[in-house]
Amino acid sequence: MTRESLLVFTPSGRRGRFPDETTLLDAARQLGVDLDSVCGGRGICGRCRVEVMEGDFPKHGIHSEAAHLSPIGPVELDFAQRRGLADGHRLGCTARLRGDLLVDVPAESQVHRQVVRKEALPLELEIDPVITQHYVEVAAPDLADPSSDLRRLLAALEQQWDLTGLDVDPAVLPGLQAALRAGDWKVTAAVSNPHPPVLARSGGVIVSVRPGFQDYAYGVAFDIGSTTVAGHLADLHTGEVLASAGAMNPQIRFGEDLMSRVSYVMMNPGGAADLTAAVRDCINGLIGELVEAAGVERDDVLAMTAVGNPIMHHLFLGFDPIELGGAPFALVTDLAVERRAADLALDLLPSARIYVLPCIAGHVGADAAGMVLAEGPYRRDELTLAVDVGTNAEIVLGNRHRLLAASSPTGPAFEGAQISSGQRAAPGAIERVRIDRTTLEPRIRAIGDRHWSDEPGFSMVPTGICGSGIIEAIAELFLAGIISPDGVIIESDRTARVRRDDRTFSYLLWEGEPDIWITQNDVRAIQLAKAALHAGCKLLMDHMGTTTVDRIRLAGAFGSHIDPLYALVLGLVPDCDLEAVGAAGNAAGTGALMTLLNRDKRAEIEQVVRTIEKVETAVEPRFQEHFVNAMAFPHRIDDYRHLAAEVELPARAEMTGARRGRRGRTG
Amino acid sequence: MTRESLLVFTPSGRRGRFPDETTLLDAARQLGVDLDSVCGGRGICGRCRVEVMEGDFPKHGIHSEAAHLSPIGPVELDFAQRRGLADGHRLGCTARLRGDLLVDVPAESQVHRQVVRKEALPLELEIDPVITQHYVEVAAPDLADPSSDLRRLLAALEQQWDLTGLDVDPAVLPGLQAALRAGDWKVTAAVSNPHPPVLARSGGVIVSVRPGFQDYAYGVAFDIGSTTVAGHLADLHTGEVLASAGAMNPQIRFGEDLMSRVSYVMMNPGGAADLTAAVRDCINGLIGELVEAAGVERDDVLAMTAVGNPIMHHLFLGFDPIELGGAPFALVTDLAVERRAADLALDLLPSARIYVLPCIAGHVGADAAGMVLAEGPYRRDELTLAVDVGTNAEIVLGNRHRLLAASSPTGPAFEGAQISSGQRAAPGAIERVRIDRTTLEPRIRAIGDRHWSDEPGFSMVPTGICGSGIIEAIAELFLAGIISPDGVIIESDRTARVRRDDRTFSYLLWEGEPDIWITQNDVRAIQLAKAALHAGCKLLMDHMGTTTVDRIRLAGAFGSHIDPLYALVLGLVPDCDLEAVGAAGNAAGTGALMTLLNRDKRAEIEQVVRTIEKVETAVEPRFQEHFVNAMAFPHRIDDYRHLAAEVELPARAEMTGARRGRRGRTG
Repeated sequence: MTRESLLVFTPSGRRGRFPDETTLLDAARQLGVDLDSVCGGRGICGRCRVEVMEGDFPKHGIHSEAAHLSPIGPVELDFAQRRGLADGHRLGCTARLRGDLLVDVPAESQVHRQVVRKEALPLELEIDPVITQHYVEVAAPDLADPSSDLRRLLAALEQQWDLTGLDVDPAVLPGLQAALRAGDWKVTAAVSNPHPPVLARSGGVIVSVRPGFQDYAYGVAFDIGSTTVAGHLADLHTGEVLASAGAMNPQIRFGEDLMSRVSYVMMNPGGAADLTAAVRDCINGLIGELVEAAGVERDDVLAMTAVGNPIMHHLFLGFDPIELGGAPFALVTDLAVERRAADLALDLLPSARIYVLPCIAGHVGADAAGMVLAEGPYRRDELTLAVDVGTNAEIVLGNRHRLLAASSPTGPAFEGAQISSGQRAAPGAIERVRIDRTTLEPRIRAIGDRHWSDEPGFSMVPTGICGSGIIEAIAELFLAGIISPDGVIIESDRTARVRRDDRTFSYLLWEGEPDIWITQNDVRAIQLAKAALHAGCKLLMDHMGTTTVDRIRLAGAFGSHIDPLYALVLGLVPDCDLEAVGAAGNAAGTGALMTLLNRDKRAEIEQVVRTIEKVETAVEPRFQEHFVNAMAFPHRIDDYRHLAAEVELPARAEMTGARRGRRGRTG
Repeated sequence: MTRESLLVFTPSGRRGRFPDETTLLDAARQLGVDLDSVCGGRGICGRCRVEVMEGDFPKHGIHSEAAHLSPIGPVELDFAQRRGLADGHRLGCTARLRGDLLVDVPAESQVHRQVVRKEALPLELEIDPVITQHYVEVAAPDLADPSSDLRRLLAALEQQWDLTGLDVDPAVLPGLQAALRAGDWKVTAAVSNPHPPVLARSGGVIVSVRPGFQDYAYGVAFDIGSTTVAGHLADLHTGEVLASAGAMNPQIRFGEDLMSRVSYVMMNPGGAADLTAAVRDCINGLIGELVEAAGVERDDVLAMTAVGNPIMHHLFLGFDPIELGGAPFALVTDLAVERRAADLALDLLPSARIYVLPCIAGHVGADAAGMVLAEGPYRRDELTLAVDVGTNAEIVLGNRHRLLAASSPTGPAFEGAQISSGQRAAPGAIERVRIDRTTLEPRIRAIGDRHWSDEPGFSMVPTGICGSGIIEAIAELFLAGIISPDGVIIESDRTARVRRDDRTFSYLLWEGEPDIWITQNDVRAIQLAKAALHAGCKLLMDHMGTTTVDRIRLAGAFGSHIDPLYALVLGLVPDCDLEAVGAAGNAAGTGALMTLLNRDKRAEIEQVVRTIEKVETAVEPRFQEHFVNAMAFPHRIDDYRHLAAEVELPARAEMTGARRGRRGRTG
């Protein structure tokens, strides 16, 4: 009779008795212990490395010894020479049980390990990508027993990986025979299986078959904005973001803002196809930059995810956006969309898997869904207000019990349009403004120069003012008393900078080539935009039956670059404790990246989106009411005036500097 | 309390009690009675017409009266005016039960009715196409309750048709909004659901959404031969073949026979793509001819099926056939292949569903699978030998207990190649030959002229001899004693038509421009071809452990045009009762058509193909032995000589005439 021994895995604590000579990998699989493997137990990939613990472990009721495993043999020796194997570590696929044993599965050997991303992915995420790799040894064809190459591949995947019910992407078969022969009947099959659980591996689609052992695969995540298209390229195994790139959305030549692009489509039959081709070309170009920057092969990019506002979403997918141009703003689909790269004319392997997050409503897009996923208000008890400010502000309010969403027509003022000296966030744009409360003299900082204008070393010649700059300028003028709570620039004998301009007054923010003014019209444009945003937020709060929120998250390029303090000073968002207001970065893009690296996140956001209650601002009479009430600046001005004094601490400048590294900013 | 009444349906005999006011269609569905409907119970399509039976029906234990139904209302009146409604007939969707009733479901109102096809489909087939049509009324979008057009369409399909878990083809969404609005929120969705049973409607893919009520959809079935490509267009609802068309396979410019095309691919990198493009172009052209001939719209062709030998199969699907050019003849796949038209660059709606039958082995293709399906040896007790003769003969032997398949390298002699005066089956080709046993003078008939050469009215100028003609010529010369059982043309003083030709003799079959000879080399070429075919059959019989077969079916263009008698005289196939040898027509194409019109046939042939045992002639030493033994002509010559005397009965000529109507013949 075969002897049995006790085997305990940490950190899971799973344990069981196994016949001697069982490999640690087999035992782990039987116990459901999360131990990785790509090569299928051939000592090639090293993903199943475990650490053998020696000694008495009373907590686990076991005495464990390294000698309770089969000795290190040629496979492990070879691996150790090629890739290194730390003392006390063994390959789980090769080491066989010969006595009681405690083994630890280090984080890097877990399939579903947590990774902490610092930049693109500002949170912990369990890596469980939609694409998994399976190295197999396929039987060679035999004249006496004819069966196709595909049948033998499928048999190998079933026998060596328990993969059954697999489908094969149409683009894989034409290259199958060459890959099998180039790999001498050893290949790595990449399988897309969007549906959990991974342990019950069944179904799925073979998306590539590469010769030999291939330990890598990549994915790209895109945030398709009206102004900027930004993408990340990530290693699907480690979750590491290897490259990021951004570009102007070339659709701009068809119209600066969303509605002018929809108008273009309305006026030009077939115009939607031009816009679709433009954005796909842009994405194809960025994919080229990403693979070059990361030093990977384009054909090894096997998955892509994308978010965008409803019109970008439709144009990317090849849907005519014309219905989104007017009430009732009917989306083609508000389900998640799965495609092959070939379906979307993307310059990837035709079989590469494309996933587009669901839109929430006709004005609340897949970008908002990405923000919801990244910010996760539905995982919290506190009431979160999350806002992505663009030409339309997309607003989500809620907690684990209930989620509401709406959009609000802010117009393009926050992006610097409709502002007399407005410009995009680019070098030369004024982005920070301080007004001395006594002298009423300004200090500014412009993009491209770390110095304030009153510091030695300041050398930038300002060319205009960007969205975050105009917010600061108006808020500071308000705090300095030059702008009234009603938004009127007041004639002043304390400064020569306020000058009459026909029937109104303007403030000369910068004297140079050109002069940069804050005009009464500029203030009105910002008032209209912020009133729309504020009213949308209030409307959701009404629906939620609340007058306060616990936290506010400002997302998107503009949202991430405005100072929360000034957002509160001007009343862009409802009152909230300043500490509870924060920038969420490119939350939409983060959401896209999350669905690339963890397939459970797809089911999660799809389920969450279904529960979101949509509020249509256009049909709510109270929206107009809130809008009118929100035109003035808040009355809690003294609170803010006090806080604003702290703004000039050095730490602030440092924070701003760190932000500057981001790409694709328009704020 | 609601009153209940008894309802009995014939011919099924299904019965049940239902609350009064239940519609007959609802009741039929609850009982699983096969009653059709496309419009979903709106009195539009009339597919649910039933006949009300009046009187006492003791067998069913019911007294039935027309008055036991709700009176004819406006919907039925309108339908009767538009389309007509016979006396005693009612629309099942509208008529409501109000008392005991016996209703008959006529054949045309059954979903799964039997249709008998006369030409392209020479057998009874239950119609159950892969595409079903569903008329739905979709909710219009509502600003106050935003949901996408797709979501409302899916909800309508679930609510009105119990269709759940539907997927949507990528090509459908771009046109969805326009279709819904053009149809004023009434559309017909075509759903592809290859997997039975139809009553448990779930899953499936929406392949088109057309405005309004659309009662029609079409499919095409193709037989892709090395020489000829032939297709049928059928109405997916009625099963009727509306048009047929054929064309030369344009790949011929890359090589006359299969092996020379494979050589072309080997010599020319990228050559496989040229061959793929050529055959797809040909199919696209034929689709154009078919839709024009049938007077239907190309976009209403929603399904296609195809068969072909392994090399045609691979080239059509875009697979390099190079591995099929040499041992071990590994197929890319021997599974059935499902594709979208877009995947194969076919000029159909991109979402149209393409189904290619499975290949059996490296030399036994999807055409053989089609033949197996059409001939159905696996449904019979008798042992059937089915042969499709081309450059490779594909041979299947078996019955309900066991099926064997092999291919045999007959070479192109049967197609008129390698024959001194050989030509394709085209006007002018000699196809029938009789040699007077006494005078040794020939009579011939040529394609394009119904008269024998000794009849008044014969006017054709023969230009050569085709496959079936050379078979008859050699068999008749053998029966007349001019060719010996060993295949030698014997010097004769009884006729001047046998003339010395270097060291051998030839027979002058036709004197004209040109003279048409049967040379010793011609006889040898046919002997080699027929010996290969015969040996392949014998090899399968050996494997089956039998020395006789019960029936022989000769399929394909050549097989359908040779006279079974002469096939036996020359020993193309093993001995069999003459009456048990028959032409199977284009059995491969018939199989393709069957899988177009009945989705169960797909599962059926896939399952059968898996059970077929493949015999590889190249590795069987006995094949060589059989081949050598089969070179001579059979010894049962006296039996055949007797039978051959009957050949000239007038009925024979008539039969031959009927056959001439077929397209795409090469025999």
